[in-house]
Amino acid sequence: MGAFDAALTASAAAVEAALDRLLPKDGGPEARLFEAMRYATLGGGKRLRPFLVLEGARLFGVPEVQAARAAAAVELVHCYSLVHDDLPAMDDDALRRGRPTCHIQFDEATAILAGDGLLTLAFEVLADEATHPEGAVRASLVLALAKAAGAEGMVGGQMCDLEAETRKLALVEVKRLQRMKTGALFAFSCEAGALLGKAAAERHRALLAYAEDLGLAFQIADDLLDAEGSEAVVGKRVGKDAELGKATFVSLLGIENARKEAHRLVQRAVSSLDIFGEKAEPLAELARFVVARRA
Amino acid sequence: MGAFDAALTASAAAVEAALDRLLPKDGGPEARLFEAMRYATLGGGKRLRPFLVLEGARLFGVPEVQAARAAAAVELVHCYSLVHDDLPAMDDDALRRGRPTCHIQFDEATAILAGDGLLTLAFEVLADEATHPEGAVRASLVLALAKAAGAEGMVGGQMCDLEAETRKLALVEVKRLQRMKTGALFAFSCEAGALLGKAAAERHRALLAYAEDLGLAFQIADDLLDAEGSEAVVGKRVGKDAELGKATFVSLLGIENARKEAHRLVQRAVSSLDIFGEKAEPLAELARFVVARRA
Repeated sequence: MGAFDAALTASAAAVEAALDRLLPKDGGPEARLFEAMRYATLGGGKRLRPFLVLEGARLFGVPEVQAARAAAAVELVHCYSLVHDDLPAMDDDALRRGRPTCHIQFDEATAILAGDGLLTLAFEVLADEATHPEGAVRASLVLALAKAAGAEGMVGGQMCDLEAETRKLALVEVKRLQRMKTGALFAFSCEAGALLGKAAAERHRALLAYAEDLGLAFQIADDLLDAEGSEAVVGKRVGKDAELGKATFVSLLGIENARKEAHRLVQRAVSSLDIFGEKAEPLAELARFVVARRA
Repeated sequence: MGAFDAALTASAAAVEAALDRLLPKDGGPEARLFEAMRYATLGGGKRLRPFLVLEGARLFGVPEVQAARAAAAVELVHCYSLVHDDLPAMDDDALRRGRPTCHIQFDEATAILAGDGLLTLAFEVLADEATHPEGAVRASLVLALAKAAGAEGMVGGQMCDLEAETRKLALVEVKRLQRMKTGALFAFSCEAGALLGKAAAERHRALLAYAEDLGLAFQIADDLLDAEGSEAVVGKRVGKDAELGKATFVSLLGIENARKEAHRLVQRAVSSLDIFGEKAEPLAELARFVVARRA
């Protein structure tokens, strides 16, 4: 296992432990809710966003216990969005990370509530004193995450995505959609460390520039997997976009050009990290990993 | 119109204006989401929780612009919970505040996303500097609202409520369920003013004691309306609890004793306000209103 794989594994283990501590357990008649929240969050996923938080925070010397809480908050939001997006009324998916989706494993009502609970917990985690001693920093994290996740970010992006099933989007619209749907949370993941570490504006901006290119490259790679991957390897249903006749980077650019564009974006993302020198190598590696991955 | 009715009307108008300013509008392909969020929030409801926030804040001399933002945040959470609770997979209600519920007016996917967007916006509103100049106060508001609304508060209470359709609860269980499902958000509504105004512990506690009794009295009154009210007056479907064979304060205590218990709780709630003197009269009036209301 290379140094990058080891770092990714270590980061995933750190966030898994944090999530396990933060998620509620036991409980009375609501125990089923707690189980569903844990099911949807623990034991799966590449934990790319937590890796961004942890590596971003490392650039500014943020204590790992603080960074792990912010990383857990981002992953809670990501997992809530998967639970809701998988619902029958939305993308109607039965498979996620190689396992039954939350509403299949439990039921629709429980899945809706589990998503609500995960989203709410993310803000509870950020606002708690254990995340940062200064209230202003905690409030800035909450504000940035809420903007990234809300109606003008991730939730709005999902709405655009549903609208995209009824109308063929142009490339500029697909880019906007993906910036909202996945880019905003990537950006917050990179920004969290800068907020926790009270980074200078220039460094904060450099991380956001990296995040923006990374987010689009990630989405192009996702479109390529949907077009070319197999369900067994990817761990979720594939070929959906073509089936729905949805415009994607692949349908608009073609496979070869989409792949080229992803690599161009990764190069630019990596060059945004120059300001940090050697210390940002794990973030550079992550960008390369994102377009090379097969699942 | 008496002084209390005028105060309730004025408070509802203030929160309506704040919500209108805070909710997103226009937008591109996600415009449908914004419309659904506005539909679910604006132009309806008694705005009891915002009234609690505004009157609680007045006790501590909190500027009205700050209090109105906290009041809007609470109402956003309340409205999100109604949108999700009304979904077919949950309570499956078609009527709310005398109008089609959000998923009937739009569709299920849009209603799920609108709820998600409203919940997220509530935290964005609280974390913004306009709500309070001190970050620690803003973070304390976020933390308290997240706890009240989350898996160990409102969302957990809704899970218990769904479980209650499969098993007859005892009185102590119904009380616990209602403390989670409606009590926690009432408590936060009263607490918000104390947090904004940095109230002394004794006064903070007095407001929470008032809120706890008020919350239960409110729920008993709701059960009485469900048992005795008419859909046309109440503005939503009635007789549901009996139809589902669910244990409620009314089924467990009987109509007469439930009414007596509600009045006893209101008296105790009002006596918790003694520490504030005359200034708390609107909160005392609200408690009396809650059990006297017919809708």
